[in-house]
Amino acid sequence: MTAVTAAPKGIYLDNNATTRVDPRVVEAMLPFFTEQFGNPSSIHSFGADVGKAVRWAREQVKALLGAEHDSEIVFTSGGTESDNAAILSALKTQVGRDEIITSAVEHPAILALCEYLAKHEGYTLHVIPVDSLGRLDMDAYAKALSEKTAVVSFMWANNETGTIFPIARLAAMAKKVGALFHTDAVQAVGKIPLDLAHTDVDFLSLSGHKLHGPKGIGALYVRRGTRFRPMIRGGHQERDRRAGTENTTGIVGLGKACELALAHMEEENTRVRALRDKLEKAIIGQVSHCFVTGDWENRLPNTCNIAFEYIEGEAILLFLNRMGIAASSGSACTSGSLEPSHVMRAMNVPFTAAHGATRFSLSRETTEAEIDATIAAVPGIIEKLRGLSPFWNKDTAKAESFQPAYS
Amino acid sequence: MTAVTAAPKGIYLDNNATTRVDPRVVEAMLPFFTEQFGNPSSIHSFGADVGKAVRWAREQVKALLGAEHDSEIVFTSGGTESDNAAILSALKTQVGRDEIITSAVEHPAILALCEYLAKHEGYTLHVIPVDSLGRLDMDAYAKALSEKTAVVSFMWANNETGTIFPIARLAAMAKKVGALFHTDAVQAVGKIPLDLAHTDVDFLSLSGHKLHGPKGIGALYVRRGTRFRPMIRGGHQERDRRAGTENTTGIVGLGKACELALAHMEEENTRVRALRDKLEKAIIGQVSHCFVTGDWENRLPNTCNIAFEYIEGEAILLFLNRMGIAASSGSACTSGSLEPSHVMRAMNVPFTAAHGATRFSLSRETTEAEIDATIAAVPGIIEKLRGLSPFWNKDTAKAESFQPAYS
Ligand SMILES: Cc1ncc(COP(=O)(O)O)c(C=O)c1O
Ligand SMILES: Cc1ncc(COP(=O)(O)O)c(C=O)c1O
Repeated sequence: MTAVTAAPKGIYLDNNATTRVDPRVVEAMLPFFTEQFGNPSSIHSFGADVGKAVRWAREQVKALLGAEHDSEIVFTSGGTESDNAAILSALKTQVGRDEIITSAVEHPAILALCEYLAKHEGYTLHVIPVDSLGRLDMDAYAKALSEKTAVVSFMWANNETGTIFPIARLAAMAKKVGALFHTDAVQAVGKIPLDLAHTDVDFLSLSGHKLHGPKGIGALYVRRGTRFRPMIRGGHQERDRRAGTENTTGIVGLGKACELALAHMEEENTRVRALRDKLEKAIIGQVSHCFVTGDWENRLPNTCNIAFEYIEGEAILLFLNRMGIAASSGSACTSGSLEPSHVMRAMNVPFTAAHGATRFSLSRETTEAEIDATIAAVPGIIEKLRGLSPFWNKDTAKAESFQPAYS
Repeated sequence: MTAVTAAPKGIYLDNNATTRVDPRVVEAMLPFFTEQFGNPSSIHSFGADVGKAVRWAREQVKALLGAEHDSEIVFTSGGTESDNAAILSALKTQVGRDEIITSAVEHPAILALCEYLAKHEGYTLHVIPVDSLGRLDMDAYAKALSEKTAVVSFMWANNETGTIFPIARLAAMAKKVGALFHTDAVQAVGKIPLDLAHTDVDFLSLSGHKLHGPKGIGALYVRRGTRFRPMIRGGHQERDRRAGTENTTGIVGLGKACELALAHMEEENTRVRALRDKLEKAIIGQVSHCFVTGDWENRLPNTCNIAFEYIEGEAILLFLNRMGIAASSGSACTSGSLEPSHVMRAMNVPFTAAHGATRFSLSRETTEAEIDATIAAVPGIIEKLRGLSPFWNKDTAKAESFQPAYS
């Protein structure tokens, strides 16, 4: 039989798109495919141990989030389902309120949904802008909040730039006007310490495959006392909050992934951060006309997004790929289009730079040798591409580079 | 590393609740956890092979369904999600129509949803009754159909009794009035040959874990030309019909499971059917006051539901479980309650018998030795339980047994 194998060749710096499943996670899952394969709701012994495993996974997720009760964890099929379920539930329970507040840099799982609700279901949508560093416009948020606000949804960390929003503060402000608060923490969970119990967050979304867990599993945190209406109806699974036979292998895998993320949290915030900083400093030091996008003082430790002026991000990715290095030009969901991502546009990054935005996202599996190899590769690639670029010439090279700054 | 292991000890006759994942399915999935773990939407090589694997899985699902185009297959998280997505989409696209038709014996994934829609969203619901053999009341269905019907949803095969509805005919009737037709084929797919291309079915739901595939993955068939509105919004995955990072391991597993089901279809309909018939005849022959529920001339080949009069199904299950035999008293979703299942009630099975309804559901992994062991166990268990039953006495034993009959 095939055993779980080592990582493939190549340097994988696209961990914000998805991560390699940790072999310890796969190992934890395996028995639930072919041995303890029962339905946890069944009363015979093929289902009995499965129920225990699901309960344990709920504890593991709870611990990583710093939540208070394991009954606050609802397993879903991933981040997108969790996001949709939270918003739709909030709108149904907040009778008499019909406004939604979110930010211009959310993932499509929130933005596309909210835009649909505004266009087709009569809700009023406030999209709060960010500044050139990706920081939320707090005044605009404060102004948008009112007793008409049904739900506020802000991401904990941005998938493209890693910028972290001050979620505890944002949630407290929502609570003051009686609005429910949801956070898409898909990129934050497993990367930075969370302490949900001491916030006013009502709903939090997470996704297994972003933290070395399997794809197709996620969770929605629903604070005890927050009313909930399910999006998917049927059987009584998940305390009537998410119908459908439990994805037991996925749940066990997600639980294990959360346990491992907690154990590696320190490493993420020291070794991984140091590697990220090394990569970033080396590139910025060696390549002219490029800059870090996002709030570089307040970022995920694993993420670095560099805008290279006067070149196409897609071209950079293809050249990197030929050298065995996987990176990304914004979120995988929107790549393929030639428009700069909505995140770059929201930050008002000039088009000549936004097109060249390249995301390097590391993980605990990233090695120093991989970072050194990437540092060795990037300057040459940029030079070659600029040589081919119709927008780049000697005059441009002498002009000053664009650079957003803290105000 | 743990390898994929053999089936656990015990006799598993609860395959309509969930099935053991075929080891060949697990093997097909394994590389996608730790090697080809990329996001299929990514442009680098960690994602490239994954895209190919997803396309191949779509072909495998299409082949099992007898569908015409692989673009008609939308991957979801399971049967319940598929059911919900189909109904909700149909209601959104059928502007000006606000009636839903379904049957009294549907799974909660349809019934609970439709009841919610009727109660809270203003739709009119027609629940078509069945006769004592679980056959649909065709006159009532014909009468309920009108130009107000938005969507009709009938299951292809019933999970408790295995009764098969005449889906092709039912779909053709819906089409005549311009209604969309959905079938919950979660129990039929992989057990009986389907030929979707030659029906008027618009939507079909299936679930991986019912056919030796993994849990947490399913599919919704959407006929080409049938308009669709997604339930889960976000990225552009699945041609904008189901947002969220693709569950690539689940998709690959489901594809393989479909391929294997097609290869074993002949066996399911000969060897498995013969084992089921042997079990059924032996029990009916040896135990008094029991009868087969459902339409026994028109049933899934793997399913046998026997109502034992004057005893509790749960007690039978516990005794069977002690002997290492796993069976079920109706759908796992509703077990735990003391009410007879809604399916038994819809067939008007008398309470004294409905309480003792016990489902034995076989699979291609079931052996003749297991069936023989079950045949040896059941009569003794029933005798013992009747000895303990306050409802059972010598007079009852002499009275005639209830027995539904074809009219
Ligand atoms: C911030 C953010 N939210 C939501 C999602 C959606 O998660 P999933 O793809 O697991 O549905 C992603 C990743 O794709 C993300 O980065
Ligand atoms: C007929 C039927 N429909 C729908 C479902 C729901 O499928 P899932 O549990 O995969 O969501 C089931 C099984 O639970 C079923 O038997």
